[in-house]
Amino acid sequence: MFHIIGVMGPGEGATPDDEQNAYELGQLIAQQNWVLLTGGRNAGVMDAACRGAKQAGGLTLGILPSRDRTTLSSAVDIPIITDMGNARNAINVLSSDVVIACGFGAGTASEIALALKARKPVILLNPNQQTQAFWMNLASGNLFIAKTPIEAIEISQSILKEKA
Amino acid sequence: MFHIIGVMGPGEGATPDDEQNAYELGQLIAQQNWVLLTGGRNAGVMDAACRGAKQAGGLTLGILPSRDRTTLSSAVDIPIITDMGNARNAINVLSSDVVIACGFGAGTASEIALALKARKPVILLNPNQQTQAFWMNLASGNLFIAKTPIEAIEISQSILKEKA
Amino acid sequence: MFHIIGVMGPGEGATPDDEQNAYELGQLIAQQNWVLLTGGRNAGVMDAACRGAKQAGGLTLGILPSRDRTTLSSAVDIPIITDMGNARNAINVLSSDVVIACGFGAGTASEIALALKARKPVILLNPNQQTQAFWMNLASGNLFIAKTPIEAIEISQSILKEKA
Amino acid sequence: MFHIIGVMGPGEGATPDDEQNAYELGQLIAQQNWVLLTGGRNAGVMDAACRGAKQAGGLTLGILPSRDRTTLSSAVDIPIITDMGNARNAINVLSSDVVIACGFGAGTASEIALALKARKPVILLNPNQQTQAFWMNLASGNLFIAKTPIEAIEISQSILKEKA
Repeated sequence: MFHIIGVMGPGEGATPDDEQNAYELGQLIAQQNWVLLTGGRNAGVMDAACRGAKQAGGLTLGILPSRDRTTLSSAVDIPIITDMGNARNAINVLSSDVVIACGFGAGTASEIALALKARKPVILLNPNQQTQAFWMNLASGNLFIAKTPIEAIEISQSILKEKA
Repeated sequence: MFHIIGVMGPGEGATPDDEQNAYELGQLIAQQNWVLLTGGRNAGVMDAACRGAKQAGGLTLGILPSRDRTTLSSAVDIPIITDMGNARNAINVLSSDVVIACGFGAGTASEIALALKARKPVILLNPNQQTQAFWMNLASGNLFIAKTPIEAIEISQSILKEKA
Repeated sequence: MFHIIGVMGPGEGATPDDEQNAYELGQLIAQQNWVLLTGGRNAGVMDAACRGAKQAGGLTLGILPSRDRTTLSSAVDIPIITDMGNARNAINVLSSDVVIACGFGAGTASEIALALKARKPVILLNPNQQTQAFWMNLASGNLFIAKTPIEAIEISQSILKEKA
Repeated sequence: MFHIIGVMGPGEGATPDDEQNAYELGQLIAQQNWVLLTGGRNAGVMDAACRGAKQAGGLTLGILPSRDRTTLSSAVDIPIITDMGNARNAINVLSSDVVIACGFGAGTASEIALALKARKPVILLNPNQQTQAFWMNLASGNLFIAKTPIEAIEISQSILKEKA
């Protein structure tokens, strides 16, 4: 079985920094021989992370909210078509061994919350103080903070080592 | 068609204040002839809100995460059995005309986030400053703050009036 | 808690007979003070059953596949908005105490199959021989055949009595 | 993007013939460099198909109904954890380019029905006459019959060629 790392972040609302970070995360995840999981859409963090992983020769899973395959990132190898809208966010986090949040928006917040609820390890990439403090209050030892994509990968490595 | 008001809040993690507020919300919702929607479990805010609504002669919907009906609040009139875990949180908010968050936990946070994402009106009942500030940053005009259950009902009334 | 009776059948593919039967089922269910559950759409069996139940003063639940409320039957009192397409068929049957299949189509077949899998009692209304034989092979004592809407109600009564 | 072929069939209710056919289907799918998708459980057709695919060096996806990873086939490379019970059957068929039904049971019948509803191509492997006739009545040109695993693969090849 492969390790599956979920990268969660906004679609249309992603900033250029979010997309750059997502691209690097995708590359680094692929270099670890981990499978990248995203929400699958051809926008923002989802698309950038998948493109990064493909550039580095990785395998990409996209858990698509709709049935409309024109919304799918062309860098997804394996599309899972849920047709269940944002209820698929629960599947995103349950299927990931580690969840990395890259950028913020309401959809990403729902994924962080669902992951904390399911006691999945969550890494926030470079959050502002307010965001960090808010989630820390809801977590129970399963929330981590990374300043850079590389640090997020290092934290993921130790999480996966502990689980093994 | 009835107006459906969702009251979202923690189960086992609810404080006595949360449960008291939920009970009052249930009563007030029933007095408005609105239908109360909760996550349906026999715990915390879900159970207290349903009991309040029944005490005031209201109608209660419970969107249960599991198939196990022993987890259902006895104050639910109409159980919807989803068997889809916390993915049902998306249904909770999509089916509510107004979402009221009463108390906090990771599950409740996921419901607030999913509601904001779906552009549903959300009322936070008596949040602390950090929580209020966090959600305000993610909302787009659809987030309201109430100090008391009565104020939450008044805000709901004006939201429903505007929609009508 | 109310008894919830699910009436499942085609939307656009319903025959005039299917719709007539569905309307009568809705009326009879309401006269028993049971709650009617359907797939909620403003088409075919779903719409006809809800209209029948409202004509007789009943309460109607519609479990809608999409987020688009323009697809909702105007005879639904309580819409549950799933936005999960035909995956909502699983919720339809899990939430029903008895499932009555009225007319046939691929969607209805999926609901019969999911109900048999979940060991819910299923009543086929006036099936042809081939259909009856096919489902009998998959059922385990939880499949019943009714010639008329009235007979379907009588069978439902004995099922509910046994459960009580 | 890979071609994804779904093999659907019973878990505990599978016959030795079903499992033998599933194993061969898994092998043949892997030899085509297609990805195998199953319901992911460590039982019956799901497990046998995954084992066959792994024996032939293929890649296997398992769309698991529960959160309990002890129910997962050890021959699944990529588990998708839905925690949504049999509602996940809708995801199984939407995510498959071709659906092959191998053996019969209520769960499999729900997948065939959901696939026909979604206008996915469905291949029934060696059905009896009654079963074949029943599904033919519900299909609209998207149902195929194969006598052997090899014939199912040949039909899949022509379906994929037509789509391309």
